[in-house]
Amino acid sequence: MKKNLGVNILLDVYGTLLTDRQRVTLELYYGEDLSLGEISEETGITRQGVMNCIHKSEKKLFELETKLGLIRKFRELSEDIDRLEGLIIQAEMTNREVLAQIDDLMVAIKGKI
Amino acid sequence: MKKNLGVNILLDVYGTLLTDRQRVTLELYYGEDLSLGEISEETGITRQGVMNCIHKSEKKLFELETKLGLIRKFRELSEDIDRLEGLIIQAEMTNREVLAQIDDLMVAIKGKI
Repeated sequence: MKKNLGVNILLDVYGTLLTDRQRVTLELYYGEDLSLGEISEETGITRQGVMNCIHKSEKKLFELETKLGLIRKFRELSEDIDRLEGLIIQAEMTNREVLAQIDDLMVAIKGKI
Repeated sequence: MKKNLGVNILLDVYGTLLTDRQRVTLELYYGEDLSLGEISEETGITRQGVMNCIHKSEKKLFELETKLGLIRKFRELSEDIDRLEGLIIQAEMTNREVLAQIDDLMVAIKGKI
């Protein structure tokens, strides 16, 4: 069984919609990086039971993302914010350049007085 | 039974997480503003069944908002964006005022040449 690391962020966003048992199992598996055997020991559920619970919970998380698309929306929003920050820096630089030119001109003008 | 108009926005945000029957019933009740009797006629479900379905679906929507808080987050984000727009307008006005003062100075300086 290969760990799908994208599940961590899904768990972060949709974890409140899982049952306690589903959330705890996924947190132990992905958050604490325990093995199926270790989770089985810790929770008293059989190894097969832990595996089934993880599969079912992952399926639920992926379905939630398909239906609500929050991670996709957050990513798009985050890209927009990055672009906005870029534009603000650009505006600041343009302003600074213009102000620097004005400064130079002031010095030149003062030199002529 | 009093119609809770906040349900419309909950339905908009979380509607994909309801069953088809729950979503359709709420859409007829809130979106199309049909009465319980009219929905009963349209869907072939008893009036009592329609009412139960609406109560159960509303409960599910409110629980989703309690667990995910998307509407609260969207509102907070929307307020931040409004503030950002206000700041941009303020920056533009400040810039314009400074530029207007520079213009005035230029005219005065030109008048002295």
